[in-house]
Amino acid sequence: MNPTHIEHIGIAVTSLEESIPFFEQLLGTKCYNIEEVVDQKVKTAFFKIGQTKIELLEPTSPESTIASFIEKNNGKGGMHHIAFAVENIEGQLAEAEAAGIRLIDKAPRGGAEGLSIAFLHPKSTCGVLTELCEDKNK
Amino acid sequence: MNPTHIEHIGIAVTSLEESIPFFEQLLGTKCYNIEEVVDQKVKTAFFKIGQTKIELLEPTSPESTIASFIEKNNGKGGMHHIAFAVENIEGQLAEAEAAGIRLIDKAPRGGAEGLSIAFLHPKSTCGVLTELCEDKNK
Repeated sequence: MNPTHIEHIGIAVTSLEESIPFFEQLLGTKCYNIEEVVDQKVKTAFFKIGQTKIELLEPTSPESTIASFIEKNNGKGGMHHIAFAVENIEGQLAEAEAAGIRLIDKAPRGGAEGLSIAFLHPKSTCGVLTELCEDKNK
Repeated sequence: MNPTHIEHIGIAVTSLEESIPFFEQLLGTKCYNIEEVVDQKVKTAFFKIGQTKIELLEPTSPESTIASFIEKNNGKGGMHHIAFAVENIEGQLAEAEAAGIRLIDKAPRGGAEGLSIAFLHPKSTCGVLTELCEDKNK
């Protein structure tokens, strides 16, 4: 595979309202976008730091995978996934599959900020939930 | 605070030998440095992706904090910490403390790759173990 940079780091939080002021202080920059991703049952908040974004994820339902993550993590938030920017996401997924990496998404789907996204399974990626992202609007 | 970019993402692994080939394939780039950090009881391996590094951490002793992390994570590796590049790390630590953030390191100490580093406590940082880094050799 051939990602160009880290597109974002996904961080699960119990409350955007409480977390946004902390990250604004830590990063010295304002949250620039809040967006609900209905099919993932999360509300997201974005910050830009260098080439990379920080994406905070608050569950909007107990069935959200982010709610499960927080439950398994003793009710606390924490680092949830790492997302790499790629070109030709379909080709990159085919390359991953050919290399024996288990795919959560066999084809890209729509994610926050208008990106095409697909997840690789952490069982194939040293325990790190890994996302590939392509901005097809560029 | 005022970090410029994400210096690295720290990922705990059970075995560098098994993990390095996977990350070389995922990132499309070779591991460029392997370094033991004796006081942290870890062996580290580094990759560069855009502005940011991926730092794999394998415990060299059961007393390593990375060994404890893996044990709590059901024997698996995973994302361990996020490190931000700063200038004037002492000033940034003072600013963090003044803002009520609990510090693990009150003063910077030596980390891998010749950096001055200090950790903030995850209880103060939304569950995310956070490191500040300065390259004083620049």
